[in-house]
Amino acid sequence: MGEIPPTIEWVPGPPAAVRLIDQRRLPSELVQLSCETVASLCAAITTLAIRGAPALGVAGAMGVALASVRGEDVDAAAARLVATRPTAVNLAWGVARALAASDPVAAAVVLAADDVARNRRLGAFGAPLIPLDGRVLTHCNAGSLACVGYGTALGVIRAAWEAGKRPTVWVDETRPVLQGARLTAWELDRLGIPATLVADVMAGSLMAGGEVDCVVVGADRIAANGDVANKVGTYGLAVLSAYHGVPFYVAAPVSTVDLACPDGAAIPVEQRPGDEVRFVGGQAVAPAGVAVENRAFDVTPASLVTAIVTDQGVARPPYPAALAGLVATGAAGSAVPATPG
Amino acid sequence: MGEIPPTIEWVPGPPAAVRLIDQRRLPSELVQLSCETVASLCAAITTLAIRGAPALGVAGAMGVALASVRGEDVDAAAARLVATRPTAVNLAWGVARALAASDPVAAAVVLAADDVARNRRLGAFGAPLIPLDGRVLTHCNAGSLACVGYGTALGVIRAAWEAGKRPTVWVDETRPVLQGARLTAWELDRLGIPATLVADVMAGSLMAGGEVDCVVVGADRIAANGDVANKVGTYGLAVLSAYHGVPFYVAAPVSTVDLACPDGAAIPVEQRPGDEVRFVGGQAVAPAGVAVENRAFDVTPASLVTAIVTDQGVARPPYPAALAGLVATGAAGSAVPATPG
Repeated sequence: MGEIPPTIEWVPGPPAAVRLIDQRRLPSELVQLSCETVASLCAAITTLAIRGAPALGVAGAMGVALASVRGEDVDAAAARLVATRPTAVNLAWGVARALAASDPVAAAVVLAADDVARNRRLGAFGAPLIPLDGRVLTHCNAGSLACVGYGTALGVIRAAWEAGKRPTVWVDETRPVLQGARLTAWELDRLGIPATLVADVMAGSLMAGGEVDCVVVGADRIAANGDVANKVGTYGLAVLSAYHGVPFYVAAPVSTVDLACPDGAAIPVEQRPGDEVRFVGGQAVAPAGVAVENRAFDVTPASLVTAIVTDQGVARPPYPAALAGLVATGAAGSAVPATPG
Repeated sequence: MGEIPPTIEWVPGPPAAVRLIDQRRLPSELVQLSCETVASLCAAITTLAIRGAPALGVAGAMGVALASVRGEDVDAAAARLVATRPTAVNLAWGVARALAASDPVAAAVVLAADDVARNRRLGAFGAPLIPLDGRVLTHCNAGSLACVGYGTALGVIRAAWEAGKRPTVWVDETRPVLQGARLTAWELDRLGIPATLVADVMAGSLMAGGEVDCVVVGADRIAANGDVANKVGTYGLAVLSAYHGVPFYVAAPVSTVDLACPDGAAIPVEQRPGDEVRFVGGQAVAPAGVAVENRAFDVTPASLVTAIVTDQGVARPPYPAALAGLVATGAAGSAVPATPG
């Protein structure tokens, strides 16, 4: 057990830098990476040294801040940053926030500082959904490492734990990049929350055996109608949950809701390199040159989602009105909303 | 492209031995392993150097043959062999066949020789189910490497290909042991049948996109009511198939049907070591000591199975009568049935 350092932070310098946990090296070692140029930050994003929708929002803002401090072309930097990962709307959101600010550095630093408060608030809204001894299944990593800190889906579990509940967690390993095995299992171990790692294919057997009380996952983009883009495999879990009558929850800050996106069909799905599947840790696990299809995300229709937990409250169907209301509340409220009552 | 050698064969010697392809070393190298003792054969089975229900049937018979040739306690050897893998009924079936024979060596050699003929017949029965340009999804390896040769689920695809159809195959990598990535992708490459490797979690996205025309998998045990035990993840695929209206086919010789087993609840499900999930190729992919649940198999209820293809014909619901009829036909027929008409 131990503290989890901030996923990403601003280093004033000189030289100014964006310092982040290099998630490619977890769980074997906890190493920080210092990006002093937009190019190196973009490379860190593309190679998944940093990932997770809320963390990418902060990375986008800090990238614009870095360009402004270095006197680079800020608009060109913004375009490069947004192009690194097309699915997570938070990245473009963070870039836009910093671009619109008179002081991009201050804007980025505030965004990062707000993240933990937002996630604690989200956790407080979500904790009542977790049964007292609930066996919770999660996919990928929507934890501290997907944000600046605390986490979204894991934040809900963590808030339930801090409120005295005793959930246990089924951790999907999450092929091909193994964010569940490498990151979520590591975080839960540090937090002292009991977790059991499973291959992704185990979910059906667990649900058939009545061994899952609810599923909680994060989101990379939520369309206006409640369709959810998240790590590939989320959709299959949602179908299994519906089939077995298991509640299926999505946890994400309102910055993940994209009201400009009418439904899931309008969400771009990023294709990742085939070598993510062909190799594990540099070691070939398939014949050389075999064709690979490697979509990073899938889209879960709103009809399969029991509730969407945000930092502004819990949305339930019908989602169009519920999500629009939460987004409006978020825009009207302070940057760091008060703890829910 | 190239020939695939027999998965397992009898070496008369002296010394007598069971020679098998060491599947732990595929796809990087094609190496044969020679087992001259029952203990070494049991170790090869336990560590998955050889696996696949039909191949395990032959391995069981050859293990008894080995004990008889070496003058060992045949009943003790039989008990050790059967205990190595509890789910695949074929293992116990092969052991029993050799035990009951006056000449266990001859019985084992005949069993092996019959395997390819059985699988070709199964393939001929199944090929009409594959659409002309069908996009077929398969899980784990039910190919030549799961048998002595030709394959069961892959035998159906192969027979369709040999009949002039042009199927393409989505290959589930099949965590944790990656039989799909390592074995099925390798086999299809050798056969020249177009295949695309995917992480197991992609199946939902592919089906939602209308990119899967049918699913064909093998089986380790089929209960009298048609419930199917197969590699973990099969059940999840069956639920996804039903949800999307995709036909879900199981291909296995009648020796996989266990009429003594009333339903799936009576099938023992093997637990495998947690390190299969914690490590890939000797490399840790999760925190040391993390708890792991690693069931090797799951059970798919008969209600989710469109048809069961055997070497004696195709069973469709209601399964109890259909399966009993095919088993009776198999018992009445010759060891190597004629090609279906």
